[in-house]
Order: sequence, then structure tokens, then C-alpha cells
Amino acid sequence: MKNNENENKNTIYGRNVILELLQLEECNIEEIFIQIGIEKNFLDEIIKKAKNKNIKITQLDKQKFQLISSEQKTQGILAKVASYKYSSLDEIINFAKEKKEDPFLLILDKIEDPHNLGAIVRSAEAFGVHGIVLPERRCAHINASVYKSSAGAVSHIKICIENNLNNTIDFLKKNNFWIYGSDAGASDFSSSYDYKGAIALIIGNEGKGISRLTKEKCDILIKIPIYGKTESLNASVAAGILMYDVIKKRNN
Amino acid sequence: MKNNENENKNTIYGRNVILELLQLEECNIEEIFIQIGIEKNFLDEIIKKAKNKNIKITQLDKQKFQLISSEQKTQGILAKVASYKYSSLDEIINFAKEKKEDPFLLILDKIEDPHNLGAIVRSAEAFGVHGIVLPERRCAHINASVYKSSAGAVSHIKICIENNLNNTIDFLKKNNFWIYGSDAGASDFSSSYDYKGAIALIIGNEGKGISRLTKEKCDILIKIPIYGKTESLNASVAAGILMYDVIKKRNN
Repeated sequence: MKNNENENKNTIYGRNVILELLQLEECNIEEIFIQIGIEKNFLDEIIKKAKNKNIKITQLDKQKFQLISSEQKTQGILAKVASYKYSSLDEIINFAKEKKEDPFLLILDKIEDPHNLGAIVRSAEAFGVHGIVLPERRCAHINASVYKSSAGAVSHIKICIENNLNNTIDFLKKNNFWIYGSDAGASDFSSSYDYKGAIALIIGNEGKGISRLTKEKCDILIKIPIYGKTESLNASVAAGILMYDVIKKRNN
Repeated sequence: MKNNENENKNTIYGRNVILELLQLEECNIEEIFIQIGIEKNFLDEIIKKAKNKNIKITQLDKQKFQLISSEQKTQGILAKVASYKYSSLDEIINFAKEKKEDPFLLILDKIEDPHNLGAIVRSAEAFGVHGIVLPERRCAHINASVYKSSAGAVSHIKICIENNLNNTIDFLKKNNFWIYGSDAGASDFSSSYDYKGAIALIIGNEGKGISRLTKEKCDILIKIPIYGKTESLNASVAAGILMYDVIKKRNN
């Protein structure tokens, strides 16, 4: 089980995103850069909150500001955030044990879109999921875009990277986890189960769903009822609905 | 009640999106443009499906192709799609009546992000919502980006634009609709209601929620349970979960 630390520094842009992070108790902003000439009113709240948190603010002229920003739409403000520190799978399972709760893990089988990953992380944190497992390859990992889409939730949930999801599932099964997989072709609706005990819920790739081998390893495949011509929901919407079903049943 | 027709032609880009549309029965593609030199295998399926549907395919050299494309990531293929034809509110209500179903409308109070709007349209169509009401100003309307995010669901659901949502709500209330509003500060959970009869569900703006006046007009405010530090879900995830609660109760 790998404890992977992302070594890249991340940069986030724009007033609202930075303000959202500043409002979090454990804000991960290390330094804020402001382009000289940006209207003061627009930045007042950010400057106030950053000072309260002892975050360094540096003013730069337009040319220097552009040198450190790789995006077009910055609104003249950017923040360097601490690199994301991944957890290990053991840490996630122990976290659930410490809380004296049955572990509830989310396994994302190659979610590619950072916006989807961010929205899923946000829902998972909101619903009290103990941790998220991402595969090492062919999927989005935690970067500034995911941070932004998660509305900062990335800071409040444990996420680990595993190099082989199928081995991870075998390990979880040996540790008495029930493995649920989301699949449009499943015969059972997600609301049919009570989700008691230690569980892992697998959400598949946006276009292809869960990979064949991984799907075969699931104990139970579940689906969301569809009444229209649309064959499936957006991956982050589907993940949100399935997590909602799980927590409603577990808290009953 | 306004029957607004979008006059702009829309352009969509990339193999997968175009293929998705071609797989729909009522595909709204009018013409496909391919850049000469793109690998044939990559486009085989598109060419086959387009021919089956009698959709014109035009090959252009790189320079001409770039002249008609406004995006960078085209994969050398783009399609002109028919402009979206909005419905009227009356048409939406009559559609529910014709199906002999209690009307279920979704009102989006200033959703700004086209990806959120697309994902919401996709969920609404999947869950059998009869129609969606959008305000005229300060929100995303149906364009190529929404089309893409909805995975084509835009073609299968009625959407109307109203110039004043509060007047629309008054009109619906006079017609015996119950108005439910999604609000993080609500005292009741969404699963507490049975959603019988004619209903409209209002989803608010990504950052600000439902506008104050509109919120006051709601008969019932509902929320989704949150167990983490995250204060709210992504707007399209929240909309998906609330629609899911509605259809589960109505189909019980």
C-alpha cells in the first residue's frame, strides 16, 4: 500500500475560489499574489481573511504576475496551495475504526474529468465517506482544478492512490468488505440493499463504466432507475445518488 | 409565456461527442466537417453512422477547417447542430397532461455553469421530468457546451425560458402546483415528503442558492443531509439527488 505524496505545487486562480479556501478552517493556501492595479474593493475580503490567517500577500506588477500565472482568467489574483498529501489505504481503514464506524470507502475506477472528481470528492466528504481510492494510472488525480471543483472538500477527506485496484479489492474482501459496483446493466436497484458492515462502492469511468475484471470482482452490482431515453447519469451525479442511498440506509 | 427560439447555430467538437449524438434516434446534427489527414480508423464509425442518417460530410484541408472551428481541441472533426427550439410553459404542462401524469417541473434559478446545466438536463430527462424552466437572464442557456454535457439529453426534454421566475411560480401556484425549493438552511429533509400531485422543484444558483424573493414563494424548503465539513453539494449533484427522491416517492 503506497503512501504517495504529490510533489507539485498547485496554483489556484480567481477571487471566489481563493475566498472559499480562506473560509475553510484548515485552509491550504501558502501565499497569495495580487496584480497591482486590481480594484481594492474587489480584494478587501481576501486581504482581511488572509491577514487573519497569517498568509503572506505579495503584490506584483502585471508583467511579473503574468510570469507566474499559467491561466488566462486570473482576475489578477492567484494563490499557491500546499501540495496534496495522499493517505494510505491502511490510514483510511484505521480512521473508520477510530471513529468506531463501519468503513465506507469509495473506489473510483478511472474518473478522467477533474470536475467530476472534484464534485465526487465534495459529495463523499459531505456524506461522511471515510476515504477515496484512486488508481495510479489513466485517471484524474488531485490538482488545483479538482481542489476548486471540490469547493475545498479535498482538504477534509483522506484519499489514497493504489497501483492495482483489483489487488486492492482482493485485500478489502479478505478484510470482510462488501464490494458494490455501479453498473447500468445491473439487475438490482441501489435502494434494495442496506449497506451494513464494511463496504466499498466502486464508480466507473465516465464513458466506459467499471473495467471488466474489476466488475467481476464486485460482490453486488447496483443501478439507479432510469425512466427516460438517457442511458446513464453524469458520473458525479450517479456517485452522489449512490452515496446518498448508502448513508440513508446506514443511518436508519 | 414566451416561446423563445435560439437563433444561433451551434458547433460541437470531437469524436466521442459527435458519436454520442449520432447514436441518438433524433440526432440534431445538420452537417459534419472533417479535417483531411485525420486517421481513417478513428472516424470510420462516425462516417458509417452519418451516412445511415443521410447527414452530409464535408472534408476540409487544415487551413479551412481551422477557419470554421473556434476551439483548439477539435480532434479534426466538428459538427453543426440545429439550433435548440425552446418550448413554452404551456407545452410542458400539456405534455404531462397528455401522458396522464402529475406534472413534475424543474425550475433552475440562475445555474451559471454550462456543465452543471448539462448534467442537470441529463438527470432530469433520465428521471422523466416533464420540463425545465430557465430564467431569461444571468444563467446558462442551451448551447453546444450544454448539449455535450447533457450527453444529448437536451434533445429529449422540453425546456422553456421565462422572463420572470416569480411570476411563473405565481402562475403555477394558481394552477395547483406545489413549489419545493432546495435550500441548505431548510429544516426538513427531502426524503420527508411524498411529492404527490403537480410539483415544481427549484434549484438555486451554484454559489448563492435560490434568490430571496423566489425562496419566499416556495411552499416547502427541503435539504439533503450533510455529515461532513462541506456545506453543500455541487448544484448538479444536489439536483440529481432531489429529483431521485421525488421519483422514488412518486413511483412508490
